[in-house]
Amino acid sequence: MDLHEDCAPLAFLLGTWRGQGEGEYPTIESFTYLEEVTFGHVGKPFLAYSQKTRHAETGQPLHAETGYIRAIGEERIEFVLSQPSGIVELHGGRVAGTRLDLTLHAVHTTPAAKSVTDVVRSIEVTDDALAYTVSMAAVGEPLTHHLRAALHRDAS
Amino acid sequence: MDLHEDCAPLAFLLGTWRGQGEGEYPTIESFTYLEEVTFGHVGKPFLAYSQKTRHAETGQPLHAETGYIRAIGEERIEFVLSQPSGIVELHGGRVAGTRLDLTLHAVHTTPAAKSVTDVVRSIEVTDDALAYTVSMAAVGEPLTHHLRAALHRDAS
Repeated sequence: MDLHEDCAPLAFLLGTWRGQGEGEYPTIESFTYLEEVTFGHVGKPFLAYSQKTRHAETGQPLHAETGYIRAIGEERIEFVLSQPSGIVELHGGRVAGTRLDLTLHAVHTTPAAKSVTDVVRSIEVTDDALAYTVSMAAVGEPLTHHLRAALHRDAS
Repeated sequence: MDLHEDCAPLAFLLGTWRGQGEGEYPTIESFTYLEEVTFGHVGKPFLAYSQKTRHAETGQPLHAETGYIRAIGEERIEFVLSQPSGIVELHGGRVAGTRLDLTLHAVHTTPAAKSVTDVVRSIEVTDDALAYTVSMAAVGEPLTHHLRAALHRDAS
């Protein structure tokens, strides 16, 4: 299946990426995790995104999230995703070479979820390594760095 | 991996389901589609949901959506999902036997997405067939029936 032409600027993300990350937040103990991220496509003007992490020592599942990066023309994108913690995010952005410059449109949570009021994400591929960061304003804390990982594309 | 005890009331959904559906809406031509739905788990108090449809004749990919059904206790659930059309949905609900009684908390769309202001979903398993319906208020139309499908659990 050929990549949709509107997704050409996003081709640098395609594939499955694996590696290790570090999490921290004022309200929890810092932790490390193993991660697998996949960006796939079906020939339509979006990429499917899925992410799973597990504990670096026990292998127990930790976090997951899934969503879509929409190519809306002129290297502009929209990124929607949901999390099993009851969070949904809507971002806008622009492709800048092999970096996504993302700006939050909105984050919403279900009634039983923890409060999250801001999410700032960065995603960049450099020398075949995908690095991302996530900062969050959650559970009453101001916008604070939360996650950082460096992943490598699966050769298979 | 054992199913999380909070997910026990949701066990009737687990697996991969395949079948055919019918779509209609006042603003488009009616259509039929082939569908695959998966509800999976990783031992945590949620199910992962993913759905893909393709054209019944050409096999071309049509729709997709992914998200999570959160078990929040006492047979109550929350359902979050996102769609490549730029839509995110947050539902609450209750497990009633092998039916989910869902109530929309909120639907949100990205700036470039078509307007959607209401989504009503039903999901029910009867005699090993999963039937669902989706109604939407979108692009200025009032809440109107949109999708209906009957799927069967993959034996494999």
